Amino acid sequence: MNYQPRPDDQRFLLDTVLGATPRLRALGPFAEFDDALQAQVLDEAGKFVAEVIAPLNRTGDETGCRFAEGEVHTPPGFREAYAGLVEGGWLALSAAPEDGGQGLPAVLEAILFEWLSAANHGLTMAPGLLHGAYECIRHHGSEALKTRYLPKIASGEWLATMCLTEAHAGSDLGQVRTRALPQPDGSFRVSGGKIFISGGEHDLTPNIVHLVLCRLPDAPAGPKGLSLVLVPKQLPDGARNAVHCERIEEKMGLHGSPTCVMRFDDATGWLVGEPNRGLAAMFVMMNAARLHVALQGIGLLDAAWQKADAYARERRQMRAPGPAPASRGAEAADLIAEHPAVRRILETQRAWIDGARLLAYRTALQLDIARHDADPARRERAERACALVTPVLKAACTQQAFDGASACLQVFGGHGYVREWGIEQVLRDARVTMIYEGTNEIQAIDLVVRKLLPDGGAGIASLLIELRDELDASRDFDAEVQRRFAQLRYLGTTIALAAQRDPALAHEVADDYLRVVAIALMAWAWARIGNAAPETPRWTAPAAAFRRFVLPEFEMRLGMVKRACEAVMSPGAAA
Amino acid sequence: MNYQPRPDDQRFLLDTVLGATPRLRALGPFAEFDDALQAQVLDEAGKFVAEVIAPLNRTGDETGCRFAEGEVHTPPGFREAYAGLVEGGWLALSAAPEDGGQGLPAVLEAILFEWLSAANHGLTMAPGLLHGAYECIRHHGSEALKTRYLPKIASGEWLATMCLTEAHAGSDLGQVRTRALPQPDGSFRVSGGKIFISGGEHDLTPNIVHLVLCRLPDAPAGPKGLSLVLVPKQLPDGARNAVHCERIEEKMGLHGSPTCVMRFDDATGWLVGEPNRGLAAMFVMMNAARLHVALQGIGLLDAAWQKADAYARERRQMRAPGPAPASRGAEAADLIAEHPAVRRILETQRAWIDGARLLAYRTALQLDIARHDADPARRERAERACALVTPVLKAACTQQAFDGASACLQVFGGHGYVREWGIEQVLRDARVTMIYEGTNEIQAIDLVVRKLLPDGGAGIASLLIELRDELDASRDFDAEVQRRFAQLRYLGTTIALAAQRDPALAHEVADDYLRVVAIALMAWAWARIGNAAPETPRWTAPAAAFRRFVLPEFEMRLGMVKRACEAVMSPGAAA
Repeated sequence: MNYQPRPDDQRFLLDTVLGATPRLRALGPFAEFDDALQAQVLDEAGKFVAEVIAPLNRTGDETGCRFAEGEVHTPPGFREAYAGLVEGGWLALSAAPEDGGQGLPAVLEAILFEWLSAANHGLTMAPGLLHGAYECIRHHGSEALKTRYLPKIASGEWLATMCLTEAHAGSDLGQVRTRALPQPDGSFRVSGGKIFISGGEHDLTPNIVHLVLCRLPDAPAGPKGLSLVLVPKQLPDGARNAVHCERIEEKMGLHGSPTCVMRFDDATGWLVGEPNRGLAAMFVMMNAARLHVALQGIGLLDAAWQKADAYARERRQMRAPGPAPASRGAEAADLIAEHPAVRRILETQRAWIDGARLLAYRTALQLDIARHDADPARRERAERACALVTPVLKAACTQQAFDGASACLQVFGGHGYVREWGIEQVLRDARVTMIYEGTNEIQAIDLVVRKLLPDGGAGIASLLIELRDELDASRDFDAEVQRRFAQLRYLGTTIALAAQRDPALAHEVADDYLRVVAIALMAWAWARIGNAAPETPRWTAPAAAFRRFVLPEFEMRLGMVKRACEAVMSPGAAA
Repeated sequence: MNYQPRPDDQRFLLDTVLGATPRLRALGPFAEFDDALQAQVLDEAGKFVAEVIAPLNRTGDETGCRFAEGEVHTPPGFREAYAGLVEGGWLALSAAPEDGGQGLPAVLEAILFEWLSAANHGLTMAPGLLHGAYECIRHHGSEALKTRYLPKIASGEWLATMCLTEAHAGSDLGQVRTRALPQPDGSFRVSGGKIFISGGEHDLTPNIVHLVLCRLPDAPAGPKGLSLVLVPKQLPDGARNAVHCERIEEKMGLHGSPTCVMRFDDATGWLVGEPNRGLAAMFVMMNAARLHVALQGIGLLDAAWQKADAYARERRQMRAPGPAPASRGAEAADLIAEHPAVRRILETQRAWIDGARLLAYRTALQLDIARHDADPARRERAERACALVTPVLKAACTQQAFDGASACLQVFGGHGYVREWGIEQVLRDARVTMIYEGTNEIQAIDLVVRKLLPDGGAGIASLLIELRDELDASRDFDAEVQRRFAQLRYLGTTIALAAQRDPALAHEVADDYLRVVAIALMAWAWARIGNAAPETPRWTAPAAAFRRFVLPEFEMRLGMVKRACEAVMSPGAAA
């Protein structure tokens, strides 16, 4: 079966739980936005994704991208489907009207990308960096670059890449060696090799705009000597630039997306932003990209869940324990959906999908507020909330995409390990999301070292207070969430103190701390959902699964972090 | 890099921790067994695995098995390597001398299979069921069948399969439909289709002996109407039997092993064991096979660990936090092995590998005792211990093989997702071990429903007492393990009581209960290792990682099971 968006789920979270429309209408550019427009966009997007994008997922995996003589051929149907994305204006959904965009809220774009990733992760990689490149050029590009590239990138007529990694420089971008030599005409000559470049070469668009991290002559060593240079495949005069794809990688999955080894041989480019400030310009892309990766994770998990759920409602094996389920009828064996082990897997994934969706959509709404609110203080607060929550969602949603897809594969038994049902593709595709745009370990270090420690936990504490105020303290579960938030605030202080004694401590507790935060945020999400949802199995079953199977990790991880801090503070005591 | 057995690790666990040699010498057939013989077998086996088997792992994955016109061609080199296994007598290691075997202890065979699986999971699947088939025919076959098949199966000259699964009958073997019609000459005509048959057809041996689960005419419905029939590919007169491979599956991994769809068209066979008692005869194979799958998990985890460990000692990225490590020298970036996130991954996998090895080798020793001890009471106790521990190890070791291989892949960052380093193959190959020989969920149900409930937890309690007696109560960690064993015994009683109220409860807590037992057994293993091991990082680092990163799951799962039981006993209280 192909992935099928179910816009009702999104509408419930956006409207009933988050009250998105009135919040958006309070922002200048969305004053005219209403439920009817939202419904129209979601319904049309869902239809397009189901009819055009999803059916190509299997071919994308099995045929894959092919490399021949410097050119990359995408799988059959990808060109046409991509053209449909551009023509439908789907890629320009949240771009500014002055750049040819539709000027719609970021939260709708977030939902579109979640669905696209669920339906066809490989194809969705192509426009995956478009939005980031758009923001990067919009904020840091010269007027000339903006005029030349912004409208084409906003629409997706030209695709973009992010050229960071080199063979010896992955997480450690300070080691980047690609060089850019200034030319008398103001352009630069770029030389060097880049690896793991998604969409570095392909046949989807006539031009490809590379944003290349490199060093100018005499730049300081390390990350503070990096500059960002825009290098197009096709030069403004129509000539081919000296950018070459040397080969594409053989990967575990994601065969629909070409991962390219790129060579720049005195290629012509133009500086984006200030010299030696390339990382700052790049980070505009990185943050947007990281939220998108979290949404990919949610989408892939939903894709896995849809497959497993459908299979579990068809396949019969053995009698389920307990009273006869209604679905038994005259059958000797029950649907596997009636077996507790299978039910647990399915309901736990739903708990992750719905909870993570709520958090991701809320974050996307905060992005809209950060961009458009009239009040600078509210803009800043929203921006800080995004910066805090994004690494948590990136790591937690991608980890769950992989673990949850594996659990969903298990529902199929041996049938899950063979290609037929497509579930093993989801698992293979999902694995990369834990790595790219900063490995999940890097996200955890970012959270602790860059977000928690600099202000001793004050930023996270004020985010938690803001979230707490959205709870209903008269309800048991909400009160429990508040109690956990209090523990979390205290934990931040504990880590900040211990980190002063031992500089390695922050790194040592980072993964567990991120999980504590993630589970607490998920608990918040389920409190919000629980207070708004009808008492139907659709919502009560994942709510119960969350409390029973997901929430216990909070106490476990909390204990792990606390013990590590105690070992630093009282080194005499047992670790 | 190819997998490299390190026999010193095994020797330490066997000799120093378990004192295996004197225990084996106390058994009749191994009176002459000594450390020198053990060392010789392990050294030779290690060499053979490293030189002959491991180098073919990559080809096995990339070329894979090919199907053409009913025949299956194994990957290049597999035939020769398999012939080497037979010629070296490796497959007959623990078979009885009267059947042409070497009569060595099962524990040595266990180590050999762990290494073979680590080095080349695909190739190792071929002889993987040989030992089970040997035991099955030895215990249940007629004299005629034994004479004709036992020596060839003991040596591996002919390979064997286990034909259970049908398209509609996976975990639920009661639904098997393949039929066997008795013939006047005492043979049977077998007709039906089987799927997921590992090694159903191949070019490694001239004959293949299929053990087929099927129904005789008028057999009762369900699992009690199943019989086991031996159907050879080549009939005793040299003619080809009517057994056909229709195709091989496209799988996520394990491409070196052909997973066959088989068709029996009035194929000639002979009953093994009593009519309608096929499952009992088959279970002789299943139990041995399940311990082997646990060993596959351990081997695959070690293969992943070796790769990640080697990479982490080569790759440099960023400065590690804390004092400068000795390996820094004049380098700008540190080895990733110095970064806490990477260290944690590597040391945690080691904790699983060593702890699980100790448990698996102890279980294999119990198999030797169960077979050969002069005292029937000791034989029975050993057999019960194996039956209890096997499902726990099967589920826990295979889950960790997959999760740990994924963690090891993460060490490589983006380089782990491409095929180059071979780590993604380990992850793909490992996934199937959670499914076959009974899914991990089935193992958990087996543990609770078949092992815990029937005697109200008495069997598990007496195993825990036996294990407790091997601890040193004067040591802190050992005392902690004893405390957990006490909690575990109490938990068994709690589940048994609650299960009387709610028949579904046992199924609902099964997965968590199995994990509680697994972590407690691992804690026992690390107490034993800790008391015997030198104070070197080789042993103290994984010991610390176990306490810090693995052990906290015990309390979490214990709490989950207890709350589920409480909800059944006091339905009024909050779940």
